Amino acid sequence: MPVISLLTDFGDHDGYPAMMKGVIWGINPSIQVADISHTVRQQDIRHGALVLSRAYSFFPSGSVHVAVVDPGVGTQRRPLAARLGEHYFVLPDNGLITMVFQTAKRDGKLIEIIHLNQAQYWLPEISNVFHGRDIFAPSAAYLASGVPLANLGSSVTDPILLEIFEPQPTINGWIGHVIDIDHFGNLITDLEETYLKPAQVRLIHCKQAKIDGLVQTFGAGKSGELIAFMDSDKRLSIAVVNGSAAALLDVVIGDPVEVVLAQKSS
Amino acid sequence: MPVISLLTDFGDHDGYPAMMKGVIWGINPSIQVADISHTVRQQDIRHGALVLSRAYSFFPSGSVHVAVVDPGVGTQRRPLAARLGEHYFVLPDNGLITMVFQTAKRDGKLIEIIHLNQAQYWLPEISNVFHGRDIFAPSAAYLASGVPLANLGSSVTDPILLEIFEPQPTINGWIGHVIDIDHFGNLITDLEETYLKPAQVRLIHCKQAKIDGLVQTFGAGKSGELIAFMDSDKRLSIAVVNGSAAALLDVVIGDPVEVVLAQKSS
Amino acid sequence: MPVISLLTDFGDHDGYPAMMKGVIWGINPSIQVADISHTVRQQDIRHGALVLSRAYSFFPSGSVHVAVVDPGVGTQRRPLAARLGEHYFVLPDNGLITMVFQTAKRDGKLIEIIHLNQAQYWLPEISNVFHGRDIFAPSAAYLASGVPLANLGSSVTDPILLEIFEPQPTINGWIGHVIDIDHFGNLITDLEETYLKPAQVRLIHCKQAKIDGLVQTFGAGKSGELIAFMDSDKRLSIAVVNGSAAALLDVVIGDPVEVVLAQKSS
Repeated sequence: MPVISLLTDFGDHDGYPAMMKGVIWGINPSIQVADISHTVRQQDIRHGALVLSRAYSFFPSGSVHVAVVDPGVGTQRRPLAARLGEHYFVLPDNGLITMVFQTAKRDGKLIEIIHLNQAQYWLPEISNVFHGRDIFAPSAAYLASGVPLANLGSSVTDPILLEIFEPQPTINGWIGHVIDIDHFGNLITDLEETYLKPAQVRLIHCKQAKIDGLVQTFGAGKSGELIAFMDSDKRLSIAVVNGSAAALLDVVIGDPVEVVLAQKSS
Repeated sequence: MPVISLLTDFGDHDGYPAMMKGVIWGINPSIQVADISHTVRQQDIRHGALVLSRAYSFFPSGSVHVAVVDPGVGTQRRPLAARLGEHYFVLPDNGLITMVFQTAKRDGKLIEIIHLNQAQYWLPEISNVFHGRDIFAPSAAYLASGVPLANLGSSVTDPILLEIFEPQPTINGWIGHVIDIDHFGNLITDLEETYLKPAQVRLIHCKQAKIDGLVQTFGAGKSGELIAFMDSDKRLSIAVVNGSAAALLDVVIGDPVEVVLAQKSS
Repeated sequence: MPVISLLTDFGDHDGYPAMMKGVIWGINPSIQVADISHTVRQQDIRHGALVLSRAYSFFPSGSVHVAVVDPGVGTQRRPLAARLGEHYFVLPDNGLITMVFQTAKRDGKLIEIIHLNQAQYWLPEISNVFHGRDIFAPSAAYLASGVPLANLGSSVTDPILLEIFEPQPTINGWIGHVIDIDHFGNLITDLEETYLKPAQVRLIHCKQAKIDGLVQTFGAGKSGELIAFMDSDKRLSIAVVNGSAAALLDVVIGDPVEVVLAQKSS
């Protein structure tokens, strides 16, 4: 059975994601559909791009990932579909593709992007304000059912990409940023394992806090203690054991996090 | 694979909708189940009827839609199942059927309603307070699996219908109402396309705001601007670009919205 | 099609449950997956154990229930899988199994528990902080696909069990506790039908309120009235008709509820 994932900022209350599932099953009722999240921060394309990039790779090869954070719906912005390595993506051309595209490029994966412009793969009637239902969902259902990507539109080589703020080197480490705050109040940073060997991390600064090195997991600290660790995405993260680091440190997305490494220090 | 949708006011925290899915899959594990919403405003039958009416038609023909907003559970109120055109509905007889019934009637669709009174299609043990799990879910699973509607109960011709407040004509337009506020804070009105040709809309009044005519989509306005447009349901809606109209105008469900049309003005 | 249920405290926003579904479908894309809840109170093992115990039995025989409330992830706590009667459970060894284990024991069901220690049934790479994705989800997928329980690990006879506070007898009834508060603000108690025959309940005390006996269902009271009834789990519950008992009485989990029975009074 083919697999589609859905990621939107539509919320869980009004039935918008269900309409997308209804459309998908109208085309192929054997498709499995998983909700990644429908509570991406509203119209926050960068947040949507990040959540998508963290989740998609755990799905089977050939999965189709529909992402709709789409403030430009109904304007000239292009609807896209893409094959990046073994995964497919269907989404507006507004930067949502950035993180998954950059990863595919870095890893030398096959990249093929098209402008969805073949209306026979859409709903018969297209609203100006809900392309998730009218264009993206049916396109994904046809893709998941075996219609070749190239049939759905014409080639695109210039997708819109967001500027990504990368960690900057310091004399003895790196300055990165909080890029997300999860359900537990854990602070997720852009300090990926490529920047630092966990064993070399000596000190982490975030707001008023100083944390001595990394621990392996939550249980290594006492309840209420502030800890840092490499998370399940291999990113440096900051947590309070049985609590919320975001609340304790009053952190917002974008706040800096500095890491001091042992081997760089004098 | 057959398709069932679920709509309730049970919330997403306690596992009540999952129990309904478990019951459905105990009868037929190949049924696809989509959640329309489990956060209908508590015991607000009118709200449930509206959300159901907006979502169901995007599902495939033959889908079974279970709706449970049921303050009268365990009393004499009847459990119903209905065929309205190509869709099936399973729900308490308390007005939840109103919008989908009226649409089917208006469009001349086949209408067949039964009182669910054949206990062999229910769970063996029936609680007084959770017919969603004990009666509606199993009935829907049998319907979706091909059991004829007539087998599940006896004919009903007098389902309870809510009073629907329709827009009223003015000298130069219509006065309608805000009937829902969605996740984005967009105001959804009962001013459907049948009342007004979009090109003729000159002015919209809502609370203290006056909006000049309709735009095609969100991107036609500047960030923070108040706009009006025909939404994906073909209803006049009011939004703030990248913001919340409900918050800006302090609107609640039921507030009036007046439209002035060009061709009616002097 | 095999069935898996998921219960976690991961929230619905970050995509963590979807990663678990992706992993499951990578092993067997025909598995049906239902979310019981992802908003168990954070790291509240007792709450998770309760919600699991209320929901699992409505799923078909042979279902696999994955429960992850796991403050000890990545420490020495064991990952477990269990067969309890006709249902399978995959969860950390921290007490989450308590209620379902005690019920199986009381009912004389087959009980078989293993320590998941066969890494060929896990993801190739195991993080220290997300065993739900890396160990529990793939183990459940293999179980649901027919791999025998015994293949996944070695036998365990001493799972960690939480202390359960049982209702205490009084001279003319029982003192129990509020063990959960649901989406409607209904108070769910540990006063199960085994402790009291509904017809014998004369008086219920909870905080400042006294309630005269039980009613059958919500519709038996007037709007705003405080009522008590046997809920769909056969537990004494307290509700406000069309309102919230938790808000009215300012109740928290653990607050006592006293029942006076007719046949015990002098």
